[in-house]
Amino acid sequence: MIIFLKPNLDPKEEKNLRRFLVDRKIEVIPVDRKQEKLLVVVGRFGELAKREVESHPAVSRLLATDRPYKLASKSLKVSSQIPLKNGPLIGGREIVIMAGPCSVESKSQIQKMAKFVRQSGSHVLRGGAFKPRTAPYDFQGLGKIGLHFLRLAADSQKLPMITEIIDVRDIELVEKYTDIFQVGTRNMQNYPLLRELGKTRKPVLLKRGMWATYKELLLAAEYILIGGNEQVMLCERGIRTHVQETRFTLDLNAVAYLKHETHLPVIVDPSHGTGRANLVRAMSRAAIAAGADGLLLEVHFDPRVSISDADQAISVEELNKIVKEVKKVAQAIGRS
Amino acid sequence: MIIFLKPNLDPKEEKNLRRFLVDRKIEVIPVDRKQEKLLVVVGRFGELAKREVESHPAVSRLLATDRPYKLASKSLKVSSQIPLKNGPLIGGREIVIMAGPCSVESKSQIQKMAKFVRQSGSHVLRGGAFKPRTAPYDFQGLGKIGLHFLRLAADSQKLPMITEIIDVRDIELVEKYTDIFQVGTRNMQNYPLLRELGKTRKPVLLKRGMWATYKELLLAAEYILIGGNEQVMLCERGIRTHVQETRFTLDLNAVAYLKHETHLPVIVDPSHGTGRANLVRAMSRAAIAAGADGLLLEVHFDPRVSISDADQAISVEELNKIVKEVKKVAQAIGRS
Amino acid sequence: MIIFLKPNLDPKEEKNLRRFLVDRKIEVIPVDRKQEKLLVVVGRFGELAKREVESHPAVSRLLATDRPYKLASKSLKVSSQIPLKNGPLIGGREIVIMAGPCSVESKSQIQKMAKFVRQSGSHVLRGGAFKPRTAPYDFQGLGKIGLHFLRLAADSQKLPMITEIIDVRDIELVEKYTDIFQVGTRNMQNYPLLRELGKTRKPVLLKRGMWATYKELLLAAEYILIGGNEQVMLCERGIRTHVQETRFTLDLNAVAYLKHETHLPVIVDPSHGTGRANLVRAMSRAAIAAGADGLLLEVHFDPRVSISDADQAISVEELNKIVKEVKKVAQAIGRS
Amino acid sequence: MIIFLKPNLDPKEEKNLRRFLVDRKIEVIPVDRKQEKLLVVVGRFGELAKREVESHPAVSRLLATDRPYKLASKSLKVSSQIPLKNGPLIGGREIVIMAGPCSVESKSQIQKMAKFVRQSGSHVLRGGAFKPRTAPYDFQGLGKIGLHFLRLAADSQKLPMITEIIDVRDIELVEKYTDIFQVGTRNMQNYPLLRELGKTRKPVLLKRGMWATYKELLLAAEYILIGGNEQVMLCERGIRTHVQETRFTLDLNAVAYLKHETHLPVIVDPSHGTGRANLVRAMSRAAIAAGADGLLLEVHFDPRVSISDADQAISVEELNKIVKEVKKVAQAIGRS
Repeated sequence: MIIFLKPNLDPKEEKNLRRFLVDRKIEVIPVDRKQEKLLVVVGRFGELAKREVESHPAVSRLLATDRPYKLASKSLKVSSQIPLKNGPLIGGREIVIMAGPCSVESKSQIQKMAKFVRQSGSHVLRGGAFKPRTAPYDFQGLGKIGLHFLRLAADSQKLPMITEIIDVRDIELVEKYTDIFQVGTRNMQNYPLLRELGKTRKPVLLKRGMWATYKELLLAAEYILIGGNEQVMLCERGIRTHVQETRFTLDLNAVAYLKHETHLPVIVDPSHGTGRANLVRAMSRAAIAAGADGLLLEVHFDPRVSISDADQAISVEELNKIVKEVKKVAQAIGRS
Repeated sequence: MIIFLKPNLDPKEEKNLRRFLVDRKIEVIPVDRKQEKLLVVVGRFGELAKREVESHPAVSRLLATDRPYKLASKSLKVSSQIPLKNGPLIGGREIVIMAGPCSVESKSQIQKMAKFVRQSGSHVLRGGAFKPRTAPYDFQGLGKIGLHFLRLAADSQKLPMITEIIDVRDIELVEKYTDIFQVGTRNMQNYPLLRELGKTRKPVLLKRGMWATYKELLLAAEYILIGGNEQVMLCERGIRTHVQETRFTLDLNAVAYLKHETHLPVIVDPSHGTGRANLVRAMSRAAIAAGADGLLLEVHFDPRVSISDADQAISVEELNKIVKEVKKVAQAIGRS
Repeated sequence: MIIFLKPNLDPKEEKNLRRFLVDRKIEVIPVDRKQEKLLVVVGRFGELAKREVESHPAVSRLLATDRPYKLASKSLKVSSQIPLKNGPLIGGREIVIMAGPCSVESKSQIQKMAKFVRQSGSHVLRGGAFKPRTAPYDFQGLGKIGLHFLRLAADSQKLPMITEIIDVRDIELVEKYTDIFQVGTRNMQNYPLLRELGKTRKPVLLKRGMWATYKELLLAAEYILIGGNEQVMLCERGIRTHVQETRFTLDLNAVAYLKHETHLPVIVDPSHGTGRANLVRAMSRAAIAAGADGLLLEVHFDPRVSISDADQAISVEELNKIVKEVKKVAQAIGRS
Repeated sequence: MIIFLKPNLDPKEEKNLRRFLVDRKIEVIPVDRKQEKLLVVVGRFGELAKREVESHPAVSRLLATDRPYKLASKSLKVSSQIPLKNGPLIGGREIVIMAGPCSVESKSQIQKMAKFVRQSGSHVLRGGAFKPRTAPYDFQGLGKIGLHFLRLAADSQKLPMITEIIDVRDIELVEKYTDIFQVGTRNMQNYPLLRELGKTRKPVLLKRGMWATYKELLLAAEYILIGGNEQVMLCERGIRTHVQETRFTLDLNAVAYLKHETHLPVIVDPSHGTGRANLVRAMSRAAIAAGADGLLLEVHFDPRVSISDADQAISVEELNKIVKEVKKVAQAIGRS
């Protein structure tokens, strides 16, 4: 159950309602959203309590929801759109394409890439400055200077940017640079990180854990949403299965399911979801046809010399083809 | 390595070649195909042997292939088309839709369904007469009479039909009725069954084992192909994963991968691949966008009363919508 | 519900009961077991029917069971023992060890191996004559002559033997030679094969499908049991998971679970379940500690030259160590 | 390659060596361990460089290792033991049992439990004060006061304690209370957390990610080890698979494999690894038989009223039985 407070409520009245709830042993979590304030009820809520609360002067309305993810659930809202400065509306009619290298490697590399990303018709520049690498001996990203290069490159092409956050202590730093926070698959259940991102007011792209069920992904989003940050998008990026020919199994069932269950936009990462550059184009088309709101693509000038993830990065030429084909598929299903 | 024999070869010359190979300890498996005869070399084949065999008077050409599935591999052929009487060309430009109930339940049920299948613009009538059920106490299908009902229904609408074969001893019986043999996921590695189907000259739709890698699927097809039956199509129908919200995880990476690796047509079964009727439409579109040559759909008049697999069967109305949407996606990628 | 018939029933009385059930639309499957005859009720069975049937003169007792696998369920029986001529009681206090090569390769190889198997203190000789190989170009086993060599070798050491059956049409042939039928992982849901094995009166070792749940394994056993063959043992042999360092993931949870759910003996195959010879000893000990009734081990003289499955075959010396260590673990848990 | 520095090295000499390496473009990560200082070489290391470095006056010896986890690898050390005040040696001859509730719920609950844990013959008290819960609306643990209750309870019984750390910012706080840090499955690849734990000098129990390969687990341990903290133990706690009857699949292959690959002690958590209280005893025995150095068990007075994870918590009586049976198995394999 969600309790919506009346707009412009006198703090005294709110306090009064909270005391009223405490008296009835109704536990709530307050959520301050941009346009409204609400209280999410934890646990059961009897019929009697419901009627009493409904008629409380501080309450505008109640919303019943049978899902464990109350704020992510479609019963709260049909669909969410996330606006981006200099960019498209994520979750709108138009498909959003985020593209760029796995890692920022140098100022000139990312500058050059930003230009190609813009020319291809893509909308957002991606690039990693902090990299969560399986081995401590692998390249861990350029860090702060990488963020700086990425920002410069994005600005030079009037593109918004997205980059990964891996340490809860870096949020303030990363927030200064990025337009979208990316939470990687390994951090989907890093709850302190999610809670802190809920306190920021910048969009968050939350990647599905490679082991997670759909419910777990939605509940992870809920950790951000209860902080009052409404700008969350989900990202399917492949799950661990027994298949050996691809690095991960891109689970597009997840896209179709999530579009039924949540109002949050759904992005697909076919680069990690296949791990093979020659499958990315077909799976980009498939993702859009399944209902995804956008794509996250790993691009490199010369995939043979990429510092990391070489097998899955596509060339700039391939990116151009993907943007074109994906738009045709989008149009075929009534989008653009 | 594959050795192609010259056309219209004198049996003596062939015998001579075989002796020549035995002398050099080169083991081969002869494959009699419709238009040609070939010998698949088992094991290694030295450079010297290669030159000798190449110039043998019975040999038209040699084909090197580095894949373990020699006849299924794309190096043999770019793409295969399977013609159907009264039906479309499978693997051609046009997308093929096979639709019908999980099980044939009665003459009138399947007659009525055949009419709807035809009206929807679908191309093939599917229906199970022999059902491989997890429990021996579940409905096992109508058997022979079910085949009969299915044939009558298909003929009444001038549709080709497809039905499952589960017992190697039933091949002769099923062959009398069906236009396409369907091999179910549980039988993907039932090698005696595959070998016998290789001796027939009817098309076979081979479903991927829910545990299988792509290589294993292609090698299972190889068991049919070495019998000389060239009319094999592969079918992705979902794999077993940890995901709990869907019955299986439809692996469209498989479609993209297989279209790179093999000339065989690839069909997708989004009904089993999701196990949820409300995801079938989105995943049908995605399958076609990924490059599939067709769909296998489970339809029911009233999904609430289906004897088996009720959760995943779509309604006739939904089938109509799927056919329309799928055609649009097909056109967007240059098919129809 | 299971209806037990009175012993030495007059056929007329049985017929009378069957008519009585038909009249009440109670569908049953008759099962002729060695010591008793019973009728398994398919579907629901109301309280009224229950009382009526209970008092029918042909009925000795009714047994309610809430599991879908009625004959495999522990409610039927606490535990089953399978006696073997010249061998141990499978499912008894003593742990049973079945050992031998993956494939029978020659008469002398299997003779020599049989001797080592006997000397190690193992109880049953295993060896494959018909091999279900992933590729049609791989060695498919010696066939009938392999069965013959295996029988000779087993007899020379007074050991019982076990060998795999892969084609339903070979049952009569294999039955002439073997003491135990082995059904491989790929055939766990080959229902025609299971049904025919249910009609034989020889023990069957049913390997779990590498994709199967515990319920599916028990229901596969049920297909054999309804034929009246009570001598079924289950075998955990590893499942397909994302783990890359082992060939399969040996699921010993299955052993612990099955010992709670079924009276059937449970055997473990740590050779396939790990795919690595250096893990077999530790996992043999673990299997017995988890409650397994026996082990199935792949042994070779020189693992480097095995024709198939070389990576997982243990040496004869390792077999000796395993038998010794496993006996100590068995004693620690009150077995031998 | 690992470069071991001479003991009691003059800082100048070390600096000289580092400059020497920089000149040769040999990148190293310095690791300050209790007894020794070493430099892990990142990347390739030519034969010439090897000879030069070997004879450098600051170098005591070089150690080649072909594994990506250089400090966790068995080539560094045969086995590690971790001593605990008031407790056993982890990784020694004796099996170590850590037991307690999922969450600390109250002072009296944990006090009472500590007494039972001691009486059962277990060695370490476990309990969660910070809980990583799938939903933000679930009980998140008592936090700091929970740590306090746990410490009091442990001290009252002269037991060491273990508790989970989920936020990198809490390390200082938790370190004040705990004897062992537990890193949960969701945080196995939370690299900032692992790096900070590497700077502490308290033992860390690192749980395997439910999606992780063995290599990934060992590389996660490496993140702690490069900080100079040598007291790391690994914990197998079940992986996500398709199996539906258990919550996770306990992968004991991992234990057997890890004991071959690493000197780090290996602990098993059969409570999470099965998710079913009635399987915990059998799997505890199996874990020890597979070679595990200890167990982590979830216990509750009355499993029916546990606030979280009720299904898998065992009773105090069951704990007593497990300790007894597990010791017998340990003795059977030469441990105690």
